[in-house]
Amino acid sequence: MKLQELGEFKLTKLISEIIDKSRCLDHASWQDLSIGPGDDAAVWQSSNHTQMATTDTMVQGVHFDLDTVTWEELGWKALAVSLSDIAAMGGIPQYALVSLSLPVELEAESISRLIKSMTCLAGKFETAIVGGNLTSAPNVVITTTIIGYSRSEILKRSTACAGDHIAVTGYLGTSAAWLKNLLGKTTLDARSQEILRRAHLQPTPRIKEGQALVQQGIRTAIDISDGLIADLKHICESSKLNAWIGLEQIPVHPLVKLNFPDYQELALCGGEDYELLFTANKNAIDMTRQVLSCPVTVIGEITEQAQPEHVVLRDKKGNIIPHKKEGWNHFGNEFSRAKLT
Amino acid sequence: MKLQELGEFKLTKLISEIIDKSRCLDHASWQDLSIGPGDDAAVWQSSNHTQMATTDTMVQGVHFDLDTVTWEELGWKALAVSLSDIAAMGGIPQYALVSLSLPVELEAESISRLIKSMTCLAGKFETAIVGGNLTSAPNVVITTTIIGYSRSEILKRSTACAGDHIAVTGYLGTSAAWLKNLLGKTTLDARSQEILRRAHLQPTPRIKEGQALVQQGIRTAIDISDGLIADLKHICESSKLNAWIGLEQIPVHPLVKLNFPDYQELALCGGEDYELLFTANKNAIDMTRQVLSCPVTVIGEITEQAQPEHVVLRDKKGNIIPHKKEGWNHFGNEFSRAKLT
Repeated sequence: MKLQELGEFKLTKLISEIIDKSRCLDHASWQDLSIGPGDDAAVWQSSNHTQMATTDTMVQGVHFDLDTVTWEELGWKALAVSLSDIAAMGGIPQYALVSLSLPVELEAESISRLIKSMTCLAGKFETAIVGGNLTSAPNVVITTTIIGYSRSEILKRSTACAGDHIAVTGYLGTSAAWLKNLLGKTTLDARSQEILRRAHLQPTPRIKEGQALVQQGIRTAIDISDGLIADLKHICESSKLNAWIGLEQIPVHPLVKLNFPDYQELALCGGEDYELLFTANKNAIDMTRQVLSCPVTVIGEITEQAQPEHVVLRDKKGNIIPHKKEGWNHFGNEFSRAKLT
Repeated sequence: MKLQELGEFKLTKLISEIIDKSRCLDHASWQDLSIGPGDDAAVWQSSNHTQMATTDTMVQGVHFDLDTVTWEELGWKALAVSLSDIAAMGGIPQYALVSLSLPVELEAESISRLIKSMTCLAGKFETAIVGGNLTSAPNVVITTTIIGYSRSEILKRSTACAGDHIAVTGYLGTSAAWLKNLLGKTTLDARSQEILRRAHLQPTPRIKEGQALVQQGIRTAIDISDGLIADLKHICESSKLNAWIGLEQIPVHPLVKLNFPDYQELALCGGEDYELLFTANKNAIDMTRQVLSCPVTVIGEITEQAQPEHVVLRDKKGNIIPHKKEGWNHFGNEFSRAKLT
């Protein structure tokens, strides 16, 4: 079966199963492993730390187009997507490795700009870029790896409880709105364009927020990269539970609401928001509002596994709204980024 | 200036300088860092360990051709090249992350074979594959990252001393001989073909040997990926010294000597041997022969920086032989893999 028929999530499952079969508990590396494939980062126990590592790849023509992104934005985003996975674990990023596959006809100046932007973002989070790899290639491929740690607990996908409220940081759909804007059907002023562009190309990974959530006793989170529904589904699958989302409760930036009639679709399935989605009891979520400087919005609830669908949408009256799309699927008809970690 | 004009080594230098300028010693990550860009792996101090990480990328059409490699071989080699960098540091590999960029028309069965082969090699070195990333892409790109550690000292590029003998494990040029054989100008029997094929596509990283060298008090090593001259030059540059190689002393497999008239060129510049090149005083090298099960051959000596060339070749009588080629250069006329770590 071809990858496009199998689809991304079944391929991820296939690979995870092969890796799982190779697990050998005689070996110290497996003994120390807390979380393998299936969360935002791999996690293992070191002598007095919880350590974690994650990797992400961006491919020219799939994740970005060199005609619509600056080299500074590309460098920033390529590193931000990996840092966001460390944020989703409540971790502290330490070291980054950067692997660049580059066409030989590129200008060296472009690569300088890309790397400078990466060092700028890394510096904001006290992360050191310590190595990587260079190869020639027919198209640009950037793989970033982050190694981090946690001094205390971490955030997982598998720890949601029935009755937990579901909350998100910031606004959803703004990143996807930028892509929609590129199609040219929307007329936006320069300031609005800048807000959308930054949301898509210069997201700030929620590193501080992830650590604050851990300190508030939150234990369940994921970053929204595939899309709200798809990522909530990852939590539901890991926690063996279901969930509903109140469609009217999803935080959408006013300018997206104003200019994009399909703003709900962008927020539900757009992805690449790099906001944190987390679950906890009502009191714990209320407490997070006091420590996080970004908006925190309750959008739904984790439920027992009653309905066949992992995630359902509800309108204001609580009625279930039919919905087909989920998020990006790399190897299916829709496209996406799939995490093994 | 375009990358093909700048060349790989100047691009590596350019990137390393930008990263070096971003170094911030107020941050714990930089304080704990022992080795950043410029060795086989990045190395930092953890509470009671020396930790290390390295990453490598293989690109379809640059490093491999799907018509001449099986998926098992591709998986093996993609992981082996990263493990070899840990070997060159004398480290113990612990965890691997695998990032796969794949065309949608590939068969899922092919990816199963690739991953199974990776788990097989990882298992041999008690390394757990714990995560990664999947994306679609126009051509296959595989990035492997290994995180490892050392309980004691490590092997570096910067610690060679004038007067050190230069030694290598195993045979050189066998891997490049396979590529030459693919051009079809050589007639080899099936057994000989198998030996060359395995050398190129299923190298066994010298993990145990690297650790044994550390235990024997050796402190300087690199793995031969770019080619003997190019990699020895990396040691010379890092150690601010020169070196000579005795052309007749280089260990070349008998079947390569017999079938390839340019066997010396293959051994000097072919690369991808994944043998260890190390330097130490004569006694220390003699001792390594007692603990390593592979051949150990002294091929030359580290010298003071007298001549303008970092590495010179000598014939039996000690006369210097002119030589122009070095190894692979990814962004120049010749191609190569460049390590930032």
